[in-house]
Amino acid sequence: MTIPQPIAFFPAAADHAAGNDTPRDFLERCLARLEEFEPAVGAFVCHDIAAARTAADRSTERWRGGRPLSPIDGMPLGIKDIIETADMPTEQGSPLFVGCRTGRDAASVAALREAGAVILGKVVTTEFAATEPRGTRNPWDSERTPGGSSSGSAAAVACGIVPAALGTQVVGSILRPASFCGCVGFKPSVGGINRGGSYDYFSQSCTGVLAASLEDAWLVAINISTRAGGDPGYPGLQGPPDPPPAHRPRALAVLQTAGWEVAAPEARRAFEAAAARLAGAGIAIADRHADPAIEEVEDAICDAAGLTRQINAWEGRWPLNTYRNRDRSKLSQSALDRLATAEVMTSADYGAAIALRQRSREIHARLAARYDAVITLAAPGAAPVGLGSTGNPIFNVPASLVGVPALSLPLLSAGGLPLGLQVMGFAGEDARLFAIGAAVRSEMLGTAPG
Amino acid sequence: MTIPQPIAFFPAAADHAAGNDTPRDFLERCLARLEEFEPAVGAFVCHDIAAARTAADRSTERWRGGRPLSPIDGMPLGIKDIIETADMPTEQGSPLFVGCRTGRDAASVAALREAGAVILGKVVTTEFAATEPRGTRNPWDSERTPGGSSSGSAAAVACGIVPAALGTQVVGSILRPASFCGCVGFKPSVGGINRGGSYDYFSQSCTGVLAASLEDAWLVAINISTRAGGDPGYPGLQGPPDPPPAHRPRALAVLQTAGWEVAAPEARRAFEAAAARLAGAGIAIADRHADPAIEEVEDAICDAAGLTRQINAWEGRWPLNTYRNRDRSKLSQSALDRLATAEVMTSADYGAAIALRQRSREIHARLAARYDAVITLAAPGAAPVGLGSTGNPIFNVPASLVGVPALSLPLLSAGGLPLGLQVMGFAGEDARLFAIGAAVRSEMLGTAPG
Repeated sequence: MTIPQPIAFFPAAADHAAGNDTPRDFLERCLARLEEFEPAVGAFVCHDIAAARTAADRSTERWRGGRPLSPIDGMPLGIKDIIETADMPTEQGSPLFVGCRTGRDAASVAALREAGAVILGKVVTTEFAATEPRGTRNPWDSERTPGGSSSGSAAAVACGIVPAALGTQVVGSILRPASFCGCVGFKPSVGGINRGGSYDYFSQSCTGVLAASLEDAWLVAINISTRAGGDPGYPGLQGPPDPPPAHRPRALAVLQTAGWEVAAPEARRAFEAAAARLAGAGIAIADRHADPAIEEVEDAICDAAGLTRQINAWEGRWPLNTYRNRDRSKLSQSALDRLATAEVMTSADYGAAIALRQRSREIHARLAARYDAVITLAAPGAAPVGLGSTGNPIFNVPASLVGVPALSLPLLSAGGLPLGLQVMGFAGEDARLFAIGAAVRSEMLGTAPG
Repeated sequence: MTIPQPIAFFPAAADHAAGNDTPRDFLERCLARLEEFEPAVGAFVCHDIAAARTAADRSTERWRGGRPLSPIDGMPLGIKDIIETADMPTEQGSPLFVGCRTGRDAASVAALREAGAVILGKVVTTEFAATEPRGTRNPWDSERTPGGSSSGSAAAVACGIVPAALGTQVVGSILRPASFCGCVGFKPSVGGINRGGSYDYFSQSCTGVLAASLEDAWLVAINISTRAGGDPGYPGLQGPPDPPPAHRPRALAVLQTAGWEVAAPEARRAFEAAAARLAGAGIAIADRHADPAIEEVEDAICDAAGLTRQINAWEGRWPLNTYRNRDRSKLSQSALDRLATAEVMTSADYGAAIALRQRSREIHARLAARYDAVITLAAPGAAPVGLGSTGNPIFNVPASLVGVPALSLPLLSAGGLPLGLQVMGFAGEDARLFAIGAAVRSEMLGTAPG
């Protein structure tokens, strides 16, 4: 099998504008990748190639006429299959919802169509975007998991079938698969992207983007939020219409998180080498041993996984209870276990958990006074062998709990397989995170100026 | 036509426990009201009498065995037709959704079934719980509107077909129909009752209760929140399992709101008489002329309607845009107008509007230091003649904007028709609002002790 290679749309858009490429030609290159990789990878639940070609042709006409609807006009996209689409079923990775059609687009999908994007298909999610895998394989090694729950999103982007796909993350469902598959993952600040029409009812969950490049991730996200806003009650992702230019950080905090203890030695070494490289470039790097403020954050997030499990269990009681009442046999054991956890909780337990979460947010926010961003691993190692689990989200859950924007950048490797460098920002400062991410990428790839 | 009279469940529950009544007998009395009133009123979209009888019989067995699931075990209920039910369609008052079944219960409905309640049917909502009426008539006068958007909820409760029904309010959709039909209306604090499975995506909207009595309203609300919690990220309605006993307020603030200028003279006189009566009972009453802090709140909410219209337009852009794309001819002109408003807004406009709302919340919250609650009218007068409009929500929108709990109590009248006295509490203090509401009721009915 060819080594997977994402295909970014952003520079191609310049070619469309100049007449050197067309969205239809771009789509055909994606479809060639679909033919090459999809049989082994299984990233898609369904796709509509004819509709995509029609949409790409319309986009081609708009670019030719000098009137593209947006910088992502013509960009082929995959949509995680918990997000509604008017023209395709939304199955949520559950046998309860096979063929289920709602006849409407989610807010994000409606915005993407308004921006001229080409919806190629629905990509595989684990059951209800939780833990039960649904068969997608890692494009780098078909014996390994692609991660989850945005399994199909990561796999489809990693092998160039689409330059970007929508994902969602409440624990580690964007950053972990991005790390395992070698693409960019972006989870926005809580509330940043309107989740209307996504079967996603968790208070710390976000719709985000898996993409071939930082630029594509930004363009997809900002083109949604401009048209559809954030979650109700949130101002939504703010920032420039173009990808934020690199902004070199002065100081970065290292968070080990609870993940450091279980990280593979090779992953630790890869991260330490990255931190050393950034330090060598003159960026101040500090960790828990150097700064008590960082130690305080480490303490506040040390049980991020347990706290998130409690919060999600309570918030997920419905609709799991009504699904169980409908047909218990169609729920995974893990779903039934989550429901059992919820059914012994009280609203007071939940109230205590969200109060602890709020405290962790306040403690983390104090880092903004001294650091431009936080760095850590995006996963404890390369994608593990086996399709029965989507891997360990331990490095991802802190950003989910704390509600801050986070990126997984495909800049590290372990055993010849991709590994993400995670960069976490501060709430509401998503554009700044992209600017810092771009600078980190330049330093790591040796393309930084001067 | 007989004068409509609600039937409360709460005292009947004591009879069930003592063996003097049964939930099945209670239901049969409700069904007699259904037969009597429903043909002229049109409160229901659909009902399932056979299923209700089966559920009531099961409840009867539980009470006989001394093992009711809750104090509302056996209570017949109507569910506003934007809230999903597993066994009945959810049509949202829209021709786009005729017969639409999702196969699941909303979080609130699942909780009510767990508590043993009997779901009699779906009650009429205006189109998408907005302004376009769907034919329900006021049980007091079939030429008059019952109010909306929870039109069927109020009408069904007012004539005793059910002791309570779920409603929702983002502008004035619970308190106004409660006022027009002469029942109790309760809109909780923002986030108080889990809206999962309700087609309701507005940040200041709430699921609440229309009921025959304060006690029934509390029991329905607390039995939902205990089992299903609040909206994700909110602790949910807190309070005792039994209806809060009356707590006599020391001081009440009068808010005229923008409604005072348009209120009918008879409604003004009814309110002034009520305020005088409460003052005569030794409760301190102050208004904008007496206290600059109240004047500041009046200023902050003077354009509550305009601000809410902006916020709701942006938040309602989706899903209206995808409904329009599906079949424009099936949307009302008012829905298309809201969408047009949204489509010229930017996320910056929305951000400014929610910042103003937040400011109004902070200013209003300061009243808690000096007043136990706020009182005002629940509507500018009795239900107006005509079925083409659901009436003016001007007195209801402040509580919606400010996010506080509010009650409409059927204690006033105008022209022989019902008119609500509104009591507004402070955010998160819903139980205390009920205690004060019970005391206000006692004073007004002359049943207060000593």
